[in-house]
Order: sequence, then C-alpha cells, then structure tokens
Amino acid sequence: MKRYDVTEMIIEKKIAKKLKWSQIAEVVGQSKEWTTAALLGQMTLTAEQAAKVGALFELPEEAVNLLQVVPYKGSLPTAVPTDPLIYRFYELISVYGTTFKELIHEEFGDGIMSAIDFKMDLQREPNPMGDRVSITMSGKFLPYKTY
Amino acid sequence: MKRYDVTEMIIEKKIAKKLKWSQIAEVVGQSKEWTTAALLGQMTLTAEQAAKVGALFELPEEAVNLLQVVPYKGSLPTAVPTDPLIYRFYELISVYGTTFKELIHEEFGDGIMSAIDFKMDLQREPNPMGDRVSITMSGKFLPYKTY
Amino acid sequence: MKRYDVTEMIIEKKIAKKLKWSQIAEVVGQSKEWTTAALLGQMTLTAEQAAKVGALFELPEEAVNLLQVVPYKGSLPTAVPTDPLIYRFYELISVYGTTFKELIHEEFGDGIMSAIDFKMDLQREPNPMGDRVSITMSGKFLPYKTY
Amino acid sequence: MKRYDVTEMIIEKKIAKKLKWSQIAEVVGQSKEWTTAALLGQMTLTAEQAAKVGALFELPEEAVNLLQVVPYKGSLPTAVPTDPLIYRFYELISVYGTTFKELIHEEFGDGIMSAIDFKMDLQREPNPMGDRVSITMSGKFLPYKTY
Amino acid sequence: MKRYDVTEMIIEKKIAKKLKWSQIAEVVGQSKEWTTAALLGQMTLTAEQAAKVGALFELPEEAVNLLQVVPYKGSLPTAVPTDPLIYRFYELISVYGTTFKELIHEEFGDGIMSAIDFKMDLQREPNPMGDRVSITMSGKFLPYKTY
Amino acid sequence: MKRYDVTEMIIEKKIAKKLKWSQIAEVVGQSKEWTTAALLGQMTLTAEQAAKVGALFELPEEAVNLLQVVPYKGSLPTAVPTDPLIYRFYELISVYGTTFKELIHEEFGDGIMSAIDFKMDLQREPNPMGDRVSITMSGKFLPYKTY
Amino acid sequence: MKRYDVTEMIIEKKIAKKLKWSQIAEVVGQSKEWTTAALLGQMTLTAEQAAKVGALFELPEEAVNLLQVVPYKGSLPTAVPTDPLIYRFYELISVYGTTFKELIHEEFGDGIMSAIDFKMDLQREPNPMGDRVSITMSGKFLPYKTY
Amino acid sequence: MKRYDVTEMIIEKKIAKKLKWSQIAEVVGQSKEWTTAALLGQMTLTAEQAAKVGALFELPEEAVNLLQVVPYKGSLPTAVPTDPLIYRFYELISVYGTTFKELIHEEFGDGIMSAIDFKMDLQREPNPMGDRVSITMSGKFLPYKTY
Amino acid sequence: MKRYDVTEMIIEKKIAKKLKWSQIAEVVGQSKEWTTAALLGQMTLTAEQAAKVGALFELPEEAVNLLQVVPYKGSLPTAVPTDPLIYRFYELISVYGTTFKELIHEEFGDGIMSAIDFKMDLQREPNPMGDRVSITMSGKFLPYKTY
Amino acid sequence: MKRYDVTEMIIEKKIAKKLKWSQIAEVVGQSKEWTTAALLGQMTLTAEQAAKVGALFELPEEAVNLLQVVPYKGSLPTAVPTDPLIYRFYELISVYGTTFKELIHEEFGDGIMSAIDFKMDLQREPNPMGDRVSITMSGKFLPYKTY
Repeated sequence: MKRYDVTEMIIEKKIAKKLKWSQIAEVVGQSKEWTTAALLGQMTLTAEQAAKVGALFELPEEAVNLLQVVPYKGSLPTAVPTDPLIYRFYELISVYGTTFKELIHEEFGDGIMSAIDFKMDLQREPNPMGDRVSITMSGKFLPYKTY
Repeated sequence: MKRYDVTEMIIEKKIAKKLKWSQIAEVVGQSKEWTTAALLGQMTLTAEQAAKVGALFELPEEAVNLLQVVPYKGSLPTAVPTDPLIYRFYELISVYGTTFKELIHEEFGDGIMSAIDFKMDLQREPNPMGDRVSITMSGKFLPYKTY
Repeated sequence: MKRYDVTEMIIEKKIAKKLKWSQIAEVVGQSKEWTTAALLGQMTLTAEQAAKVGALFELPEEAVNLLQVVPYKGSLPTAVPTDPLIYRFYELISVYGTTFKELIHEEFGDGIMSAIDFKMDLQREPNPMGDRVSITMSGKFLPYKTY
Repeated sequence: MKRYDVTEMIIEKKIAKKLKWSQIAEVVGQSKEWTTAALLGQMTLTAEQAAKVGALFELPEEAVNLLQVVPYKGSLPTAVPTDPLIYRFYELISVYGTTFKELIHEEFGDGIMSAIDFKMDLQREPNPMGDRVSITMSGKFLPYKTY
Repeated sequence: MKRYDVTEMIIEKKIAKKLKWSQIAEVVGQSKEWTTAALLGQMTLTAEQAAKVGALFELPEEAVNLLQVVPYKGSLPTAVPTDPLIYRFYELISVYGTTFKELIHEEFGDGIMSAIDFKMDLQREPNPMGDRVSITMSGKFLPYKTY
Repeated sequence: MKRYDVTEMIIEKKIAKKLKWSQIAEVVGQSKEWTTAALLGQMTLTAEQAAKVGALFELPEEAVNLLQVVPYKGSLPTAVPTDPLIYRFYELISVYGTTFKELIHEEFGDGIMSAIDFKMDLQREPNPMGDRVSITMSGKFLPYKTY
Repeated sequence: MKRYDVTEMIIEKKIAKKLKWSQIAEVVGQSKEWTTAALLGQMTLTAEQAAKVGALFELPEEAVNLLQVVPYKGSLPTAVPTDPLIYRFYELISVYGTTFKELIHEEFGDGIMSAIDFKMDLQREPNPMGDRVSITMSGKFLPYKTY
Repeated sequence: MKRYDVTEMIIEKKIAKKLKWSQIAEVVGQSKEWTTAALLGQMTLTAEQAAKVGALFELPEEAVNLLQVVPYKGSLPTAVPTDPLIYRFYELISVYGTTFKELIHEEFGDGIMSAIDFKMDLQREPNPMGDRVSITMSGKFLPYKTY
Repeated sequence: MKRYDVTEMIIEKKIAKKLKWSQIAEVVGQSKEWTTAALLGQMTLTAEQAAKVGALFELPEEAVNLLQVVPYKGSLPTAVPTDPLIYRFYELISVYGTTFKELIHEEFGDGIMSAIDFKMDLQREPNPMGDRVSITMSGKFLPYKTY
Repeated sequence: MKRYDVTEMIIEKKIAKKLKWSQIAEVVGQSKEWTTAALLGQMTLTAEQAAKVGALFELPEEAVNLLQVVPYKGSLPTAVPTDPLIYRFYELISVYGTTFKELIHEEFGDGIMSAIDFKMDLQREPNPMGDRVSITMSGKFLPYKTY
C-alpha cells in the first residue's frame, strides 16, 4: 500500500458518504484548505489527526500509518496541467509570473515568497455580476543572504 | 520592432531613471499589478495610457503604437520556470492544484475561476516573525453549462 | 473505481448494445455534443442525468455517484494528439491560431473566447463534391479588464 | 529574406497604417479569414494577390516573390500555446477531442475532417448576456479506404 | 476489453499458429499492407471482415465487435521511435522532409499528399548487391483552396 | 559562414531566378530528389557538382567549399513536424510504423531497410478522381548478424 | 505474454540459478555480448537457440516462441538514461559525437558506421593504476550514394 | 567572443586551408581523437597547445586565451541527435545500453566506466565485404564504495 | 519480483515496525546515508549485508538475492523533481551549477568531482535562528587527460 | 543591455586580465562562492559591491546599474545539464534525492532545506589517493505548518 492508495480510499469513501471537505476539516481540526491538501496526499498528519481521519473513513491501520509519513509531493499528472480549472492558475503564472517577481522584489528586495511557511484561504465573494472566487495567499518573505 | 523590444526599452529606461512600478502605475492611472503586467508585455494599453507611457520612457512612435496592439501573451522562457521566486508559484499549483479544484467545485460546482475577469493585489504583511507577502486574487466563477 | 473506469464501462456497453450517441443524448435530454463529452468523462452530470445513464448502461451505484463528481478534465493521452482525426484539429490551431487571435481581437479587443460558456453543434453538410463536416462553435467573449 | 521577415514587414506596416484585416481582405479579394492566415505566413498567394499586397504595404520585390512560395506552415512558438486566447482552442481539443472523434465517426464512419479542403467563418454573435464569438468550420470528410 | 487487448490476442495467436500476414490477408480479402495495419489496431473492419478474423483467431464476440469500432490511431510508444527499423523511416523524414515538400509543391502547388486516401505496397526487390526493400506509396494530392 | 547560410543563399537565388528543382538537377547531373536534398543542406557534393552549383547561383568560394563538407543532417525545426505536408509523412509512420516492421521482418527476417543505401523517386500519378503523388522508395535490406 | 515478460522470467531465473552471462553465452553458442543483448529482449533467436535458452531457464513454450519473433527494440526507459553507468556512454556521445562524425567522414567520406552490421567486444584491461574497461566496436561503413 | 565562436573560426579556416584533423593533431602533438574533440570546443588546451593552434589558424589573442578556459561541454543541439552518423551511436546505447551494464557489472561489480579517465582510438578496418569503422574505447573502472 | 518491489517491501515494513534509518544503518554496519540509498534501491549490498536486511525486514529469499544485484539507478519519477524538498537541490544546481564549475576548475583544472568515489554526511546544525541542515559532500577529483 | 550581457563582459575581462574568482571575491568583500554566483548573473549586488565590480572590470554605468537589479535566475541552458561536471551534481540528486528526503524528514519532520537562506563552502581536500572536492552546504530547515 502507498500513500496514493490511501488518497484513493479517502476519495471513494468521501463520495459514498457524501461528505464535504469543510465537514472533514472540522473533524481534523484544521482549515479546509490544509485538510484538503493533506487528504489529497500532499501533507503529513499527526498521529491524532490520522486517527480521526482513519475513524471517519474506516481506513485500515496501514493507511493510518501512511498518513503520518511525509509524502512525495506533487499532485498533477503532467507538467502543464490539462484540467481547465487548474490550468487557469498555470496561465496566471505564465502571464503574471514576471509581474509577481517585479513587485515582490520592489517591495522586499531579492528573495522569494515561501511556499512552505505559507497559508491560504479560499472564499466565495458575492457579486451581482456573478460571484467570484477569492483566494488570499500569505507566505513569509525569505531574503537571499550574502556570505 | 516588436512588443518584446518595447518591453526591453521600458526596462532599460526604468533602471536608468530609477523609477518604481508603483510610481509608473500612478502615471498610467491603474493599479501597480496591472501596470507592471502591461509594461512587461502582457496587456493592451489604450491610446491615452500608451501616450503617457511613451512620454515617461521617451519611446518612439512605433513603440507607442505597439503598446496598443494585443500582445502574444506568456512571459516565461520555459514551461517549468527556473527562477526561484516564480517557481514557488508553480510549486503551489503542483502541490495545491487539486486542492484548488476540490474546494472551488465544492463551493461553486463545475466550472473555473476566470483568469481574464481577474484582478489581484499584492501587499507587504508586517509580521514580527518576518514580514510576509500577501496576495489576494479575485476571479469571476464561470460555470460549465449544459446544452 | 475512478471516473476513467466509468467511461470504460459505458463504452463497452455502448458497443455491446449498439447504441448511438444521438440515441443516448435523447435519453439524457441534452445535445449529442454535450452528452458525448460528458460520458467520455469530461463533464459533470446532475443526479437525474446520472440516474438515467446508470439505468441505460446498467451501472453500479458507485459509478452513478462518480458521474456526479467533477472530473479531472483532458481526454487525450499526449500533448500532440496522434490520432489523425483529432490531429487535424490540432493542425488547425497550429496553422490558424494566430488568425483566430487577430480576427477576434480586431472585432472584440483584448480578451478570449470562453471555452467554458461554450457550446457547439456538429452536422453533416451534404455536398456533391463529397459531404462535409460542419462544426459551429459559440463561446462568450470575455474581455480583459484593467484595475 | 525569409517568409517570416515578410510577415514582420506586413504587421509593422499594418499597425502604422492602422489597417484592419477586413479592409486588407477586400484588397486581396478573399475572405478575411483566408487573408489573415495568408499574410501571417500560412498560405500561398497568386502573383496577382501578391502584387496587390505588395502595393498596399510597399513591399520590396523579393518580398512579393516570397509571398508566392509555399511556406513552412505552423504559426505558434510552442507545442502547447501560452497565449490565453489561442490556448482556449487547444483546451477545446483536449476536452472535446474524443467527442469530435466519436460524433464524426458515428455520422461518417472511419476517416477525418480535412484541414486542407477547409474553410471557416468567424462572426460576432450579439447576445444580451454578452456578445459571443461564433466560428463555423467546414471541412470535407475524407474516408479511409481499404485496398 | 479494449482494442489494444484485441491486438494482443491476435498477435499471441498468430505466433502460436505460425501464420503469416500474407496468409491472414487472403482470409480477410484485402492487401497484406492494409490487413496488417488493421489487425495492429489502426483500421476499422467491416462486420464481415471482423467475423473472418474472429473465426481465424478464435476471438470472443466482444473482440469481434471492437474490431468494427474506429480505433484511436497511433501505433508507437514514443514520439521519436526507438526501434531501429521504424527509426529509419523517421530519419528519412528528418533528412528528406523538406525535399518531399519542395518537390510536391513544385509539381502540384500548395497542398498535401493525403495520408487517408492512401495506399502502399511493400515488395522484395532482388539485387545481386543484396536484396532491397521497395515501398511504393500513393496518396491523393489535396490542394489548399482560397475562400 | 555555415552550410545553413549556403542553403539560404541558394533558396533566395532560386526564387529570384525562378528556377525549378528539376532544372537545377539537370545542371548538377543527378536526380531531382537527390539534388533537392543536397541543396537543402542534407548531402555532400563533389568538387565538380559544387562548382556547377556555385556557377548557377553565383555563390562565393567559401560557399562552394562548404557544399563539399559533410553537413550535420536533419532538416526540420521540431521533433514532430508542424508543416501539414511533412506531418502527413510523420503520421504515416505513426499509423503504419508497426506495419512496416511486421511486413519487412516477415519477408526478410530481423534487420532494417537502409536509409543510407537508399534512393527514391517522386512522380505525379494522373487519376480521374484527382491526381496522386506516387513515391517509390528503395533501400537495401541490412540483416542483424549474430557474433 | 510479451517479449518483455520473457526477459523478466530469464532475469529472475538467472539470479536464482546464479548463472553468469558468459556461461549462458556458451550454452547459446554465441558471444557474451550478443547473447546478453538477445536475452535482454533486443535480438531474435533461431529456433535452436531459443530451445537451448528455454531448456536452461525452464521457459514455457509460448516464451520459447516469442524469443524467435523480432522484438520492438530499445532497452531504456527514458531518452536520456538515468543510470550512471549507461549515462556515461550517453555523455561520450554528447561530448565526442561531433568528433566521431568528423573523423569518420575524414577517413571514409559521407556515410555512417552501421549499427546493424555491427559487433562488439568488452574486456577487462588490467592496469596498475586501476583496471580499465575496454570496448571494441566494429561496424561496416555505409556510404551515402548519389542517384 | 565565446568558445563557440572560436570553434566556428577554426572550422572555417580548416575548410579554407584544406587541413585534415590528423595533420592538425600532429601540430598539436596529441592524438587525432583528442585534438578533434578539443578544437570542436570540448577540451581545454595548455598555453603551448593553444599557441600552436592560434598560429596554425591565425586566431586573435582572445581566441587563444579562450582555448585555455574549461568549456561548457556538450556538442549536440538536441537530446536525441538528428544526424544519422551520430544517431547510430545513440541507437547503440538504446539497444545495447543494458548489455553494457550487465557485462561490466558481471566483470567488475557495481561501478562505472569513466568517461573522464578515458581514451579512444578510431581506425579503418579493411574488409573485403566493405571496410569497417573500428573504435576502441578504454575507460578506467570506478567502483562504488560503501561508507 | 524486481528491485523496485523489494524497496516497496522494505518501506512498508519500516513504517509498520517504526524503525529509523539510523537504526537500520547500525544493523547494516554502514553510514545512514549509504544505507538509506541502498535500501531505496540505488546501491548493491554484499551477501552479508543483504542477509542482515532480509532478517530485519523478514524478506523472502528472492528479495535477499535481488539486493545483491546491481540496480538500474535513478530514484525520481520525473526529470525535474516535483517534491519541494528534492526540488530545492535541483534549484541549487540550476542557480549554482556554473559556480560549482568555475570554482572546481579554478582549483583543480579541467575534470569533474566523482559521483561514484563519493561520500556524504548529513547533520542537524543547531542554530538559535532556526536549526539548519548541513550536508558535506566529498568526491574525488578526476582530471581529464590528454592522449 | 541585459544582465546576460553584463555576465559576458565580466567573463571576457576576467580571462583577459587573468583574474581568479578568489581574487575577485576579495575585492567584492564576500566569499568566493557567493561572488562567483553573483557575477555569473544569479545574485543581486549592493550599490557598493556593484561599483567595485564595475571598477575592476571597467564596466559601463548601465552594466553597474544592472548588477543591482534582481536577475531572472537559472544558469543552465537545458533542464538536464550536458556539461559532465555539472551533470554529476544532477546525478547525485537522481540517485540520492530520495535519500536526502528520507534523512531530512527523519531528523526534522516535514519541511525543506532552504535554498535561499543557504550558504556553501567549496574546498580542496588533500588525499594521497587523489585530492578530493569537499562541498559543505548549510541551509535553514523550514517546516511545513498546519493552519
């Protein structure tokens, strides 16, 4: 059994039980964003979190153990994603990537926005012209140092 | 002359004149995010905006004309970006792409977040543990329709 | 079980029962274009549509559930398709892509033709020189906005 | 000088003279779709057409000659296009490619829609919910033959 | 079961029964070239042809049905083939591709040689310096049309 | 100067002088197929052939020398060709590659058709249904040997 | 069963029986170089050779038949090999490839070293500074011909 | 000026002066194999060797300096070489790569054949069936060590 | 069974038994770095080491044999790794690769740092600003030789 | 002028002036590792550092300005490096990448070694069996956080 198989089990049970990610997140005790990433095989759970997930989805012990092992991360089957929803984010990097770079460097100097010390929040933004998806990302700025 | 050459001219002049993107944005009369993307060759300017940019950077008339022509978009030299700052955004899609997909579909059903009817805002978020980069993205949700 | 497996089941049953896509579309109550894409794993069905499809193809309940979950879209095994029929469409983009771009921008300004708020119709066009395939695509124009 | 250079000359002059593709098409005496593709380096002009184009854009004789030579076709810099407008067409093939295949085979049997004996028409489709891009493609069906 | 599985069954039985493609072609009633391509999963058989093949190779009914369904074509595992025999044909295109283009355009004008309305014949050409492979390809010329 | 530049010079002069490949082949004293490949930079000329070509196209001495140096072969800009005429040949390998393999091995055993000890002939094949391109290839069979 | 499965069987048995390739080669009656390539799925065996191999490794009849069928050649999982030993050979081509080309053309004129009419010998070369691997390759020179 | 430009200068002069690599190697005082690789930009020359080469090809001082700087190695424009002569070596690795691996490991254990402490010799091998290219490679075996 | 399967077995057992790599290394009698690489399928074990590993993880005899066979090395599923931890090392090569090259050549001349006669040590480096990962690599310098 | 051009200028002058990186580092006042990376276009200099570099290499003012602008990082021309010295580092990741991952996670939990808050030191390690390259890397451990 591999982490990938655990992800499969969870998704099958989630559909059968008609659970929502936000409900699962409450059980886990973390945000819906982190919980979804974790159960899709991208994050590592504590023993306590894994036990809750195991109980919720009736997972075997081996699966509960695997949830506590750091996974090989990367959730997409191709370097350029084919799914239209995910592709739009890739397109944003293609179009705005150099803009991100210029503005962050202008504000902070040489360095990066951490993708590790990072959190995000995804909300529906009501709008009479059609509701909008609002995503707020927050990552620590890490400066390059000279030595 | 091509749009790419206009971008080069603007960058050279920006460095020589020690201008900041936020200052340029004030001249153009748009946000710093849109203005940066536009002057890096990703957006189309109106005649009025192009004239202001032409005056600021002392561009030839041909360049001012090109700023008003829709460009072939895409600002990165490789499908997987090598620059560490830009790569971190690519990594976020690799790690969180399926999470974006699950949560947007849970909230909105089948469809995408538009990368066209889209805006973003990039701010410094002061933090005693080290300042953070905060990016808020807002894109209209576009549902798939049956027919 | 995954959506891909549901697609396999449907195709096997469709061949065994000698059903046509246009007949299936009548059962589903949508156009043959949308119905075909949906049953090939690219669109999400409502509970009612999924139930009809499940009855028609004698699918297990898990499969009927999966038809109602938004799929990871993308129906081709390679970035450049090898199948001659599908490749011709890729070739049209290779040869006419910049033409699409110029003419849409000339008519509408900067923006895109939506691939989400989109429909299409495929018909036989009788012709004494040999019948023709006629495809009409209609997608909403989405303008880039300044902010 | 190469065909690519002729395309560059035409685009520079078109911008400077503020000509529209539909106006140029009238001079050439063909549809705006074919004319745009031809002047973007994808089609071969007759001596008469090339002479008209040469006069309109003040091209040197060598360029007028090159317009009459069959070009190496393919107008995009990457296998998967980065420009959002053109990408949407690529996405349609990714999502609907197998649908095109199924429906054309259902109607016509094994074979392809010609991308050579092909024409297309691009129109604005007024719509109170937002105008739409309407593209009609017509290609001869070519059946595979046994031998 | 998929077409690929039918191809596998046929190849296993062909080896066990020590049949030659030319013998199989006689049973099918077509050339050895078309028959081989068809049974390797690239062409569509009529009900009558499929029945003959089913009888010869003792195929189950599902397989006989699949032989009559248009397959997803493309018989090679990689874009650049690794098998030396097949690679030599790829090399011919790499070295002679622009020659094919120049000579066909010189003789016929702009257009292509059809790969659909196409037939070929492969023969041994006795030669005292070592026998030669002789391949004759014949494809209809399809001219690009203006519109 | 490189061989590529010599090819450019020849093509420019050929267009300006309105010469046909068959006429050039007569000057060189070889077939039109070999001559075209050679002048497109794929074959090596003898001193005598190079001198004739140099005289015909008024090439500088350095270019005449370069025609006698073995070139780095490969005439296409991408691994999968984008030009529709050349792509059709690539498609033939994709669809018929395993057929070539099976039939050559059936006739000759394990080995290849040489792409070096190779010649070809390209002709117009008149046909009331539309003229056809006929290509005959002849390559020496080279058997694998045990040792 | 496929050739690949036969290779797997042979490797498993070879490990279990602690046989060396040189011992197996003696049974087959060919060099250790050819025998290894053949049993790794790259060469075709005669009925007699296949029978000996079948007896040595206790293969089923279907496997013995498959050893006599020409395989789809190519033994590596990626275009650029990851295994350090095999990569060094790839590196030699990357660094010395143009040297091979220059020196063979200087000695023989335009043509290639055959990879079909080819043999090789691999030996340990004792050396006080550390033993060396010595590989001697011999391939027939095949000249390009004019026609 | 870069090393690549120095290589270009040397090749142009070599053609103009009709020098052979073996003659140049005598001037340099090394083997023809090493000398060719070095002057094609893959090896580093001593001051003395560079001076001799500079004198022979009338190179400017900057070029003579560059010959003494370690170059960025790799002499081929694509990962899979298109030139038929060089491709045959790539094919040998594709077909025989796992054979190299098995036989070297059988003889030496885990480790590699060095591509650095390496030399080669390329000779014409007269043969009544057609002369052969004979290449002898000798590389030090480097064992993996435990620690 | 293949080496890959042995790696899987070991990882499953390691998780179930809650063993640490450093504990396993003590059993094997080598460093934790070499032991981890070896049990992840990259190194070859002696009979004695394999027996200890087999006992510790209760492996079948076939697995113990496979641990003693030189594996096909390369532990990552894609050329550019998607896992963030491993990607950072790839990024270091992308950013510092030419620096490594310059400094090693400045100190040692032309040659490489061996990746075979190589060892490494990975330690936690306590630091009040946050602990650090400290990796020391030591590889023999191998000079290119002239011949 | 671009940063790439500044790098070129510096390298040309460094060769002409026969300067060593360690000497340049003393002028800049940083380690030789950081200085080399910076002058090869990967790091951003302060105004003071840039002025010193400008004086040392006689750079124009525009170049001195560019040294202070954050560059688009990534110093290699291909995703898999062809240069043997740099490739060995890529090979280490291919072979030891999963080992790095396991051992860092065992010691620190889920997270990464920073490639930004990072320093390295490269030294010659004298050894009677042949001197060794010793590289010590130190990067801050960054833990993934839940939220």
